[in-house]
Amino acid sequence: SSKIKIFALNSNKPLAEKIAASVGVPLGKTSVDRFSDGEIRINIEESIRGDEIFIVQSTSAPVNDNLMELLIMIDALRRASAETINVVIPYYGYARQDRKARSREPITAKLVADMVEKAGADRAIMLDLHAAQIQGFFDIPVDHLMGAPLLADYFLTQGLDKDAVVVSPDHGGVTRARKLAEFLKAPIAIIDKRRPRANVAEIMNIIGSVDGKRCILIDDMIDTAGTITLAAQALMDAGAIEVYASATHPVLSGPAIERIEKSPIKQLVVTDSIQLSEEKQIDKLVQVSVGPLIGDAIKRIHENKPVSPLFTTRFR
Amino acid sequence: SSKIKIFALNSNKPLAEKIAASVGVPLGKTSVDRFSDGEIRINIEESIRGDEIFIVQSTSAPVNDNLMELLIMIDALRRASAETINVVIPYYGYARQDRKARSREPITAKLVADMVEKAGADRAIMLDLHAAQIQGFFDIPVDHLMGAPLLADYFLTQGLDKDAVVVSPDHGGVTRARKLAEFLKAPIAIIDKRRPRANVAEIMNIIGSVDGKRCILIDDMIDTAGTITLAAQALMDAGAIEVYASATHPVLSGPAIERIEKSPIKQLVVTDSIQLSEEKQIDKLVQVSVGPLIGDAIKRIHENKPVSPLFTTRFR
Ligand SMILES: Nc1ncnc2c1ncn2[C@@H]1O[C@H](COP(=O)(O)O)[C@@H](O)[C@H]1O
Ligand SMILES: Nc1ncnc2c1ncn2[C@@H]1O[C@H](COP(=O)(O)O)[C@@H](O)[C@H]1O
Repeated sequence: SSKIKIFALNSNKPLAEKIAASVGVPLGKTSVDRFSDGEIRINIEESIRGDEIFIVQSTSAPVNDNLMELLIMIDALRRASAETINVVIPYYGYARQDRKARSREPITAKLVADMVEKAGADRAIMLDLHAAQIQGFFDIPVDHLMGAPLLADYFLTQGLDKDAVVVSPDHGGVTRARKLAEFLKAPIAIIDKRRPRANVAEIMNIIGSVDGKRCILIDDMIDTAGTITLAAQALMDAGAIEVYASATHPVLSGPAIERIEKSPIKQLVVTDSIQLSEEKQIDKLVQVSVGPLIGDAIKRIHENKPVSPLFTTRFR
Repeated sequence: SSKIKIFALNSNKPLAEKIAASVGVPLGKTSVDRFSDGEIRINIEESIRGDEIFIVQSTSAPVNDNLMELLIMIDALRRASAETINVVIPYYGYARQDRKARSREPITAKLVADMVEKAGADRAIMLDLHAAQIQGFFDIPVDHLMGAPLLADYFLTQGLDKDAVVVSPDHGGVTRARKLAEFLKAPIAIIDKRRPRANVAEIMNIIGSVDGKRCILIDDMIDTAGTITLAAQALMDAGAIEVYASATHPVLSGPAIERIEKSPIKQLVVTDSIQLSEEKQIDKLVQVSVGPLIGDAIKRIHENKPVSPLFTTRFR
């Protein structure tokens, strides 16, 4: 059968290294840099004719540059006669623009899916999409992996599941909270935000019992950390003994780090789907790697085995 | 018939204003900015249902951001029921990646054409493409406008056509030089670059007579200005009395401005296809506007008249 080759672009080389190590192949040789005017220059430095290619690229910030690197790389690989082009997008940017919430809005998450497909990708491997519906934006096969078991694994090995309650920061995240709670064999609670009148601060009402408990807040991504830090304070005010926060994707833009530092959050447990600059790697932050999870998925794809139930294997 | 609406994105609002003024409509109301994490947020602030839309956006630096703004805007307009979506791309970025010069290179100019079409553009209006073949990368109609008549107009009105010789900086640009020379009723010369051995400086040999002449160097774009400034020096060394340089697209990246300042180039005459930051607007630089040219094209498209012969109308 054809040879697996894994290529890293610029968004997350450390994760790509871990994935390649888990699969047991070296990273493919390529250089991805810029011409003087800022246009992307890609050089693939080894033959890939007939190979089964996996490109690892998160479309995290700078999102437009990272997305274009991915599209141009797909184009180059297709023209160089790759057998199949699989794109591994651990963090899928523009995922929140997945519907028209107001008139005349774009649906950029669909546009990006179209671009990836039109460029020539044959298959996509993704992790905790903001909405599972985004799978349907693609006509190619999508393997949708789950970070929750890895996050659960961290809490379990640290013994933090004792007296724990898993808390969803909003109604939309209850399914996600329930999943983590199952792994931890813990109850759940939900934060119910309400704005009594326009221009009046939101009230955070907690559904479920958190008094005397260790709260584990869970979300798919933490961006500016506004919601999660307010939620943490509300939980402490309601008698929680400590608050952990957890999410698959550490977007952490703008005031996020400052807010987390100042908040009662004891630890923020995330994955390495997004590479974080040094300033963001604060003491409170724990990054668990999705490298082995994605590596397993790649091996299963190569062996023509189903990928989707993968997330449960290590927890059964 | 349907209403013309012209929208400017962020790459070149001054040109969009000039185009709109020439057409006689106000610019459409829209805001194009960024979310905290750098993702593009577009708000179209007026109804465009059933309208004939023109989006003005050069894919100059930052090329990936400008390109994504264009694609997302097309997506939003299509979903908001625009009648037709015409994209005006005065400077088409990635145009130099228009063929595989070496193994495993992408053809990014084709990828970008595919993206623009897939997003939903119905027609493209472009100016002096790096290679005319790029028109064939699109399956939608392309109107290919020419800057040479406007550049010629400048030299003619300044009386600089007297004793002039139009010089192509390389063999690839002879057709372009011939076109300008026709407008100026001037002879042409060609710079013939040769590298006698590897790792030895190039020799600039001049084909044609420039001694005692005013030389007008012409290219489609000036990027780092390496070639054009060396050519200017070679022309002075060969007895030219003065050297002008001219190009449609002032890319002017990296060392370009410093090189031009230090070179014997007396004036650099370009168009406003690319918006230049203040530091780049040096005394030697003259920008002639393509606003009326593009405005005329838009009016002709609206009236269902042919656009391509437009470039000759004001010079016959
Ligand atoms: N990059 C972004 N940062 C913040 N908000 C966004 C971003 N992209 C889209 N949105 C908005 O987030 C909302 C959707 O988020 P959600 O309700 O969590 O799915 C929509 O109102 C979008 O306009
Ligand atoms: N943005 C860019 N800046 C400089 N060179 C480029 C750029 N894009 C492509 N090229 C290279 O320019 C060459 C083509 O230029 P040309 O021969 O003038 O058509 C190819 O070798 C490309 O690799």
